[in-house]
Amino acid sequence: MLKKMKAIGCHLAEESPIQFEQSIPIAKGHDVLVEISAVSVNPIDTKIKAGITDRLNTPRILGWDAMGTVIAAGDKTTLLNVSDKIFYAGDISRPGSYAQYQLVDERLAAKAPVNIKPEQSAAMPLTSITAWEALFSRLKIIPGHDDGKTILIIGGGGGVGSIAIQLAKVVANLHVIATASRPETEQWCAKLGADEIINHHLDLIEQYRMLTIEKPDYILCLADTDQHFSAMAEIIAPEGMICSLVNSKEKYDMNVLKNKSAGFVWEFMFTKPMFKTKNMVTHHNILTQIASMIDEGKIISTLQQTIGPITPGNIITAHQKLLTGKTIGKIALTALV
Amino acid sequence: MLKKMKAIGCHLAEESPIQFEQSIPIAKGHDVLVEISAVSVNPIDTKIKAGITDRLNTPRILGWDAMGTVIAAGDKTTLLNVSDKIFYAGDISRPGSYAQYQLVDERLAAKAPVNIKPEQSAAMPLTSITAWEALFSRLKIIPGHDDGKTILIIGGGGGVGSIAIQLAKVVANLHVIATASRPETEQWCAKLGADEIINHHLDLIEQYRMLTIEKPDYILCLADTDQHFSAMAEIIAPEGMICSLVNSKEKYDMNVLKNKSAGFVWEFMFTKPMFKTKNMVTHHNILTQIASMIDEGKIISTLQQTIGPITPGNIITAHQKLLTGKTIGKIALTALV
Repeated sequence: MLKKMKAIGCHLAEESPIQFEQSIPIAKGHDVLVEISAVSVNPIDTKIKAGITDRLNTPRILGWDAMGTVIAAGDKTTLLNVSDKIFYAGDISRPGSYAQYQLVDERLAAKAPVNIKPEQSAAMPLTSITAWEALFSRLKIIPGHDDGKTILIIGGGGGVGSIAIQLAKVVANLHVIATASRPETEQWCAKLGADEIINHHLDLIEQYRMLTIEKPDYILCLADTDQHFSAMAEIIAPEGMICSLVNSKEKYDMNVLKNKSAGFVWEFMFTKPMFKTKNMVTHHNILTQIASMIDEGKIISTLQQTIGPITPGNIITAHQKLLTGKTIGKIALTALV
Repeated sequence: MLKKMKAIGCHLAEESPIQFEQSIPIAKGHDVLVEISAVSVNPIDTKIKAGITDRLNTPRILGWDAMGTVIAAGDKTTLLNVSDKIFYAGDISRPGSYAQYQLVDERLAAKAPVNIKPEQSAAMPLTSITAWEALFSRLKIIPGHDDGKTILIIGGGGGVGSIAIQLAKVVANLHVIATASRPETEQWCAKLGADEIINHHLDLIEQYRMLTIEKPDYILCLADTDQHFSAMAEIIAPEGMICSLVNSKEKYDMNVLKNKSAGFVWEFMFTKPMFKTKNMVTHHNILTQIASMIDEGKIISTLQQTIGPITPGNIITAHQKLLTGKTIGKIALTALV
């Protein structure tokens, strides 16, 4: 008989998560089996939960951000080994990290930073991959080539914003303008390296008129896309590019970008695992670089709060904090015991 | 008294162009004065004409594609000299090329190819800059890095398509799928180097299903954007990018691109002169490379038809041909005499 593990899952959107038991899965092919030491929460967790509209027989395990130890490796693995301490976001189409054990394709994981705590590592993968892909694959910023260009990061204090500010400064040497709306998020953005901070609760166009800086070559919108689209189209520089993360409810008049030869692109970090693209291993590569930069002290973990071990109650608490939209940096949980 | 020149211009959208006289302009600053040897026509000519809704006292000189000889140079010029044979598209906010003489900012012009006829050179600037910027600045294809990726060029046989096919093959080494709808445009696209040709009058999605090739990493839409947006969103590869030239009348549901982390960007070749961007000189650089590639036999002029000298009647004929939407390659006119 297979050994059992504890996990936290949801049967239905409107029900609270529950703890249950299921068999520990077996690592095959490119998968490694991970004993989870810490996880962090992301808005995608609450979105996936909200999408469970038909009652599931087996609860869906949420959570796609973890740090843990490899305890078994599939026959096709070449990148990771048993006993490696790794961190990863994984694949949204598979069971998540709110569990004692989880399978992950080794091409989506990498060795974790060695100088920080498990929950500080668990805070990083999803947001780091998102920010990295947004900057370097979607906006196609070329480090060493686009030095000094300007990026506006709308929602600088959140999970993705907190790492995007650092990467935009450290890797790409951009001039970074972040938005924040409270003294504590302003201070956090400044600590992470933002050169200028404006307020996304005030009129962005008006603030740009008042600033003596150039219009942004790049905009990374981490807040509500619909709310900011018109302002972004107005302030983006000629030949500029806007990258957004949050699904739109409205249709857009793209003509407003035409005379500037500007564009709009999405970043969704689960595109590669979802479509099983040939370059899935880039997630391994990105995380390897993130771990190095953390260990070298070039960037810091964006962890701001550890709530406690993975329990249904602590997950509810973490999700409630996320849903306020006021979270600074990341929220983590320690191992399910 | 200033010397006079002949020019062809329009007072009002619904009136035919007329020949008139005005003073030969004087080259100052970065401008050079050009004696025009040949011009070519583009859809922008008829669009600008259609936009003259209030009767002008002085007719607007249309035409933004010319080859000619520099006969005077402003005091800030450093790139071009008197007696240089040059080609350029110029600046849509200034008088056009349907004239004996024209001013152009030297940063928007370059020495013309030496081994081809003036009208073959005049056929190239606007479409070459458009195709170059679309491929390398908007889609951000990196020559030597994106070898073997696939591009779908919708409307391969037209002015921009005819040079885009060549640049996508010769400069970027892409796998090029062009659309055409008639035997003669199919042959023309094949001659220019397209690897596969499909029909834009049939269902693109259906044809893609039937083809055994991968979905395109890039789409360059040179036809009606509204007509093709849904199909482009369906067939674009994960992480793909769509570039379009023709203004939309409809608003778009951009969410259809979200799961693929795909995007949409415009190319408008007058963005740089219109906004007086710091990198205006890139038009000089692009045209210099185009001239070299033509002289080295790497690409060919896309000229397909020379109608005769610049006269009101010949311009009307050229515009009528453009408005059929069936033009293959480019149409040129020789000097106004």
